[in-house]
This record gives sequence, C-alpha cells and structure tokens, in this order.
Amino acid sequence: MKIVIDGMGGDNAPKSNVEGVVNAIKEYNVDLIITGDKDTLEKEFSNYEFDRSKLEIVHASEIIENEDKPVKAIRSKKDSSMVVALRLVKEGRADAVISAGNTGALLAGGLFVVGRIKGIDRPCLCPVIPNIKRGMTLIADGGANADCKPKNLVEFAAMSNIYAKKVLDIKSPKVALANVGTEEGKGNDLVKKAYDELKNIDLNFIGNVEARDVINAYTDIIVCDGFTGNILLKSAEGVAMSVMSLLKETFLSSTKGKMGALLLKDDLRKLKSFMDYSEYGGAPLLGVNGGVIKAHGSSDSKAIKNAINQGIKFTQGNVVEDIKEFIKNNEDQEEK
Amino acid sequence: MKIVIDGMGGDNAPKSNVEGVVNAIKEYNVDLIITGDKDTLEKEFSNYEFDRSKLEIVHASEIIENEDKPVKAIRSKKDSSMVVALRLVKEGRADAVISAGNTGALLAGGLFVVGRIKGIDRPCLCPVIPNIKRGMTLIADGGANADCKPKNLVEFAAMSNIYAKKVLDIKSPKVALANVGTEEGKGNDLVKKAYDELKNIDLNFIGNVEARDVINAYTDIIVCDGFTGNILLKSAEGVAMSVMSLLKETFLSSTKGKMGALLLKDDLRKLKSFMDYSEYGGAPLLGVNGGVIKAHGSSDSKAIKNAINQGIKFTQGNVVEDIKEFIKNNEDQEEK
Repeated sequence: MKIVIDGMGGDNAPKSNVEGVVNAIKEYNVDLIITGDKDTLEKEFSNYEFDRSKLEIVHASEIIENEDKPVKAIRSKKDSSMVVALRLVKEGRADAVISAGNTGALLAGGLFVVGRIKGIDRPCLCPVIPNIKRGMTLIADGGANADCKPKNLVEFAAMSNIYAKKVLDIKSPKVALANVGTEEGKGNDLVKKAYDELKNIDLNFIGNVEARDVINAYTDIIVCDGFTGNILLKSAEGVAMSVMSLLKETFLSSTKGKMGALLLKDDLRKLKSFMDYSEYGGAPLLGVNGGVIKAHGSSDSKAIKNAINQGIKFTQGNVVEDIKEFIKNNEDQEEK
Repeated sequence: MKIVIDGMGGDNAPKSNVEGVVNAIKEYNVDLIITGDKDTLEKEFSNYEFDRSKLEIVHASEIIENEDKPVKAIRSKKDSSMVVALRLVKEGRADAVISAGNTGALLAGGLFVVGRIKGIDRPCLCPVIPNIKRGMTLIADGGANADCKPKNLVEFAAMSNIYAKKVLDIKSPKVALANVGTEEGKGNDLVKKAYDELKNIDLNFIGNVEARDVINAYTDIIVCDGFTGNILLKSAEGVAMSVMSLLKETFLSSTKGKMGALLLKDDLRKLKSFMDYSEYGGAPLLGVNGGVIKAHGSSDSKAIKNAINQGIKFTQGNVVEDIKEFIKNNEDQEEK
C-alpha cells in the first residue's frame, strides 16, 4: 500500500504537509509519496529525523492555486503537485491521494485524471459535520453535484454507507435524506423519488431528517444533492463561527466578562474545538477509481496526518472494490 | 383598517393572543377582531381593562390543531378560528390576519381562502433569520414551495423587496440568491437561470451569497426555493440551539463553570435572545390577496403584539397593491 500527498496544496504547504508526512510514517509505518518541488521538499524534510526508506519524493514543477479555475487548472498545469499525485493513483503507483489544495480542482482531477468507477454516474464529496454526541455526520453529497437525479442520491447513499462502515468503523450506519419534514411524502420531487428507491436498497435507511436535527446525531449519513449539502453545511458553519465571535465579543466587553471567560477558559476551548470543522478530518471523493481525500485548506500537520490515516483505512477497507460490488449487485437486481 | 387575530392558534392560545390584542389596542390604538370561542375569549378579556370599542369578537366553534393535515383541516374545519379569520380577510372585513397556529394550514388557507394575487404563480413564506448586525435577513421562500421555477424566484425577490421596504423600513434592500459560491455561473440550473432574470429586474440585486454569510448580514433578502430556504434556516437554528445547550452543559459541569456563568449572566441572556428566532416577529405569506402573517407557534403576548404591528405596517404600506403594480409593470415589460 502506498499513499501520495500533494506536497504543495493547502494554506500551510509545504511545511505542514511535510511534518504530517513525517509523523504519519512514524505513527503508521506506512509507505508515502509526496509531490512537489524536489529541492523545497528535500530542504523541509532535512529538519526531521525519520525512516527515509518509507518516503519517495516525486518532483512536480507547478502549483495549482486556490484562485485557479478548477477544470482549466487540471488541464493546463499537468506538472502540478496535484495532477502528478492524481496520476500516480490513476497509474496504480499509489492507492490514495491526499490534497489540501483547490477543492474544485481536486474534484475535477478525481473525475478526469483518476476517473469514475464504471456504473457510477456522479462521484460525491463527503465532508463531515460535527454532532452533539461528539461524533460526526457524513454529508453525501456535500457539494460536488449541484443538480441530481434520484439515481445519483441512491448511489451517494450506497457509497457513503460503505465508507462509513470501512473507514469510520460504524457497524450499521443510519442513512437519512435531508428534508423539510420527517414524514414520507414530504419534500421536493427529487427527494420523494429518492425516498422510494432508498426503501428498496440494502441499507439502514431511517427516512427523512430535518436540517435542524443533523447536529443532534439522528443519523450517521445525510443524503442530498450537492447544492442542498453545501447550504446545510455552510449555514451551520456560519452560525457556529458567528456564535464564537459573539461569545468572544461578549467576554471582552467588560471586566466581569473577562473574569468569567478566564474561569471558563478550558471549557470554552472544548466548545471551540467542537465547532471547528477542520478538526474532523478530510472529505473523501467517492465513486472514483481510487482514494481521493480532500483535506481542509487550512490543514495543520495533525490534519494532514489524520487525512493520511483516512487514506490508509480507505485502502485497507477496499472501499473501491465494495462500491464496484454494490454496482454489480444493483445491476443484477434491476435485471431481475 | 382592521386586523384580525386567530384567537385559538398557537401553543399559548388563547391567553397570549388575548393579552397581545389588549396591548396592541393600547399601544397602536388599532381596531382588532379576534376569532374563537366567544365565551372563552370574553372570560379572558374580562381580566383586562382597555377600550372595548376597539375590539370585535367573532365566534368560531372549531380549532385547527398542529397535528391536523393542513389542506384537509382548511376544508373540513370551516368554523375554525383560523378559517373564520382568513374569511374575514377574503371578504374585505379585515385587511390582515395574524395566526400562531398550524403553519401548513395557514399556507393552505392563504391560498384557498384568501386567494392568490392574479399573476403570482406561487406565494412565498418569508421567515427571518437574525444576523450579527442585530438585524434580520428575510428568507424568500422559507418553505412554502419545495419545487420552483426561475420565474417563481423572481417573484419571491420582487415581493419580499416590497415587504422589506414597506414593513421593515429598509430603503434599498439588498437582494441575493442563496448559492454555493459567489461568482456568476455557480449553482444549480434553477439558480443560474434566476440569476440571469434577476439582473434585469428593478432591484438592488447583489448576486450570490453563500449560506455561511447569511448570518453576516451580507444581504437583506435571500432568495431561494422553499426546500433550500428550509434547509438553510433549520440548519442555522439547529446549530444555534445546540450551542446554547452545550454552553449550558459546560457552565453547569463545574463550580468554576457556575461561577463564570454567574458573572456572565446578563451577557449570556443577550446572546440567547440573539439566537432566539421567535423574537424576530412573524413570517408574512406574500402573494395572496391580503395580509397573512404567521406568528411563531410558541408566541407569547409580546410576539403576538409585534405580529399585529407587522399587520398594521403591511396594510398601511399597501404591500398587496405594490405587488399588483409590480406584476403589471413586469407584464408590460414582457410585451415590449
């Protein structure tokens, strides 16, 4: 097994990426590849002591920036650290790729460089949203596909179910549709049709969940089109961030506030970490022919190391093979 | 001008409704009608001293419960406090109706009893979401229409723009589309087409806003289909409520926490009121032939009084006439 890391992707690259790689080698004893400017990377690695036989540096002369147009960047920057990393997965030289770079470019690269699994219409990106049980809920799709058909939602459900079992170690993940009410028959056309299809799939489908209850951990997986997934996630994120800054403002506005905040320092730190979405690992792109994990743009070395661990579990769990198996069974079902 | 209040709708009816009516008469010197069981209401009103000449009680023998199926309830409970109130608007005996009862039933009643404004395809419900500038953002549509066409979104924008000017006193309301990114060309088919149409309407259209930034007051009005509006609103609400309960848990978990909370009591109350969506007034149903205001189900007398004030401003502002004027101008535009 080999995992490749886009060495130049992310706000803190290459420093955090390099440190994450070093710590992953130490902790997981895994073989890693990193892509990017060889001299720069060599210099960074020279700061650490670790088993160099576990690491391969593959030179890449270009960098895809956050401002780059995704599809254009993938097509024109063929020697970028991201495209070179994706190509290693395509060629079977690596099993999974981790990137903290341009999200749109990674989605496009997953599709155009690594390629779709045959039978999957639309790969989906699955970010997580923290819930009050200190766990996380997968959003499938969290933003890769703005317009979806019922068939796509069924595939998102099946793929994220496999991922939740194999990578998140949830035995029988609860799968629900994001909806405006809990009763069957609620919602828009897309959701109503997907509901009917999901009832007939071998899943722990629990029906509809309202957006308000996602954070209450009513479900492990929430299935929706990528437009809805983005709205759900970003709305929650916006409120969480605003409340944190309101709290801060409140605490700093008076002496009493400052004293109170001092007493509560440790508790508030816990609250902050609960609301910090970047602590909850990377988002997998499911439905492509290999592991593609999007780490948060502001990933520190710990986040990179965690994403590498996700890549390891993704590979060991045979997620791609299981998705292919689902397609086969599903097609057999339809033929009957 | 006369405003009618559904006397039996809401978790705290009729007590809060009656008290809200009394206070509104005192504060606004307005003529009010209240619907519901005459004996019950008379008995409640006997607890207050106020100018009885400003009040009319219209008897209604039935109550629509929260558990009732909306359309069925409107059709079968013809003598319910809600339907009787809606009929008074239909018949021109009242200008606007306030109800804290079953939301779905009020939407159905707005359509079937009061009736659509000719030329409006789909009325929209416009709840508000508080923002960090201590103001509020209108969501149009917040849940009345799960599936929408671009034309509907344009009408939502135009109607909520009129409402924001006339009732919320915003001079030139900023109108934005809820979207997954800010650039033109982002989003699903619906949003892309609506974007093109909104550019050509006489509005302060500022483009796309991400769900994350709604709370940051980037816009006064956020336009979306009702499915998206519900997801956006409920996701924010869920996080706000969870954070409040997490804070409470944190504060009560230790002596230090309790001391800190004591010091911060006033500040935390402010924070709580910011996050309490019910404090921000009722949601108008725009596009029907009269004022229909949905007050929060858990409305206290203050919320009822505030909703009555919304009804007054709605009527004084000629919102319905302005919407008719928009349709006329828009049709003229299309004919050219």
